[in-house]
Amino acid sequence: MSNASKTTGTLYGVSVGPGDPDLMTVRAMRTIGACPVVAYFCKRGTSGQARRIADGCITAEHIELPMVYPVTVELPPSHPDYGRQIEAFFDESAERLAEHLAAGRSIAALNEGDAFFYGSFMHLFLRLASRFPTEVVPGVTSMMCSASLLPRPLTLRDDVLSVIPGTLGEEALLRALRNADAAVIMKLGQNLPKVRRAVEAAGLADRAWYIERASMADQRVMPFREAPETAPYFSQIVIPGEGLRR
Amino acid sequence: MSNASKTTGTLYGVSVGPGDPDLMTVRAMRTIGACPVVAYFCKRGTSGQARRIADGCITAEHIELPMVYPVTVELPPSHPDYGRQIEAFFDESAERLAEHLAAGRSIAALNEGDAFFYGSFMHLFLRLASRFPTEVVPGVTSMMCSASLLPRPLTLRDDVLSVIPGTLGEEALLRALRNADAAVIMKLGQNLPKVRRAVEAAGLADRAWYIERASMADQRVMPFREAPETAPYFSQIVIPGEGLRR
Repeated sequence: MSNASKTTGTLYGVSVGPGDPDLMTVRAMRTIGACPVVAYFCKRGTSGQARRIADGCITAEHIELPMVYPVTVELPPSHPDYGRQIEAFFDESAERLAEHLAAGRSIAALNEGDAFFYGSFMHLFLRLASRFPTEVVPGVTSMMCSASLLPRPLTLRDDVLSVIPGTLGEEALLRALRNADAAVIMKLGQNLPKVRRAVEAAGLADRAWYIERASMADQRVMPFREAPETAPYFSQIVIPGEGLRR
Repeated sequence: MSNASKTTGTLYGVSVGPGDPDLMTVRAMRTIGACPVVAYFCKRGTSGQARRIADGCITAEHIELPMVYPVTVELPPSHPDYGRQIEAFFDESAERLAEHLAAGRSIAALNEGDAFFYGSFMHLFLRLASRFPTEVVPGVTSMMCSASLLPRPLTLRDDVLSVIPGTLGEEALLRALRNADAAVIMKLGQNLPKVRRAVEAAGLADRAWYIERASMADQRVMPFREAPETAPYFSQIVIPGEGLRR
């Protein structure tokens, strides 16, 4: 009887924003404070960006649950072992969270930017949302943070905005760019040379900006044509709209 | 000499998020607290959503600068007098702000959602950014807040997201929907019947959601097919992506 009425914990996908802790919302801070468990993805040897952003909200009372990626640079994502290892890692991470939730402990799962906007939180959400109460705390996306650094609004009036993963093929990139008035290309990293060709081919090079690590200490903002040869994952191309009326 | 060295104020475009004051960022609250002047757009007889969201940050020390829209329902936006009246109103509002900035007083200009994402702040920004130091504080968009209420992430993996103003013609709406994996249609209001036809024609009706006043006290979330006949301006259609790998 007491077992049957035991309440499970809630899984919160807590969006902690693009990098500067000042860009966390009150709700994100309060949610972290109210959860006994804080979970976050990270690479070996670091506690990761999300944990760093939320640092001021995490106390010695929190149970910390780092989820350390098993493969990062060792294998290319196209390698069949990469997919197998990473899926097994997400399964196992979700089970570690499930144990806390089943025991009644709520979890703040931290996510850079917004949890539902290309967020790593999806790997936990897709495995746990059908089993436990789940809530997402929305946040400031890196896209809006990058846009805030430019001398024009990202979208205005009747602009259609396209948000495009840099992982797409060159043809698909070009098509998505041609169908939009404003565009943001995410996930640059090693995709930058291909993205660069697509932006040039779409005739958008003069309107485009390159933004690296928006709101972080080493943030860089420059016109697209001055962008470096190689880009980190935390970088974006932003093409503000022209405010068409249609 | 003392005049020449006098410092002008800074114009801050402060994004206050979708509606719940808890979704303001620390930086937004701090910026409002540090500015002697708070400006916001509103309709006659109300102080508006942005002012309501920021209420807890505004004190008796603040100089409040409400900018009251001269026309809202009296004339249709297609009427030539509408454009003239509204442009004159934005010019005059910008001049009121310019007086404070020239006198050295910084201004927090409040904007629902994010100031650079279809925000009314653009009307001030386009008129004042070349004359005074200007900064944008990014915020949580209504789009991400709406998405946080759904049982799927908005975008994942290689999804291309299209953000589409409901003001577009039916053909343009359909084209934008067909070119995307995930989509958000903003500015519904009286555009809902047209948007509904486009979503049906694109074959997306079963994947679409209707969200009204996300994060406000009277928020409503429902499958697209159950959406009401008429929608307020603060409502959106959200079509989460399917997480394609390409």
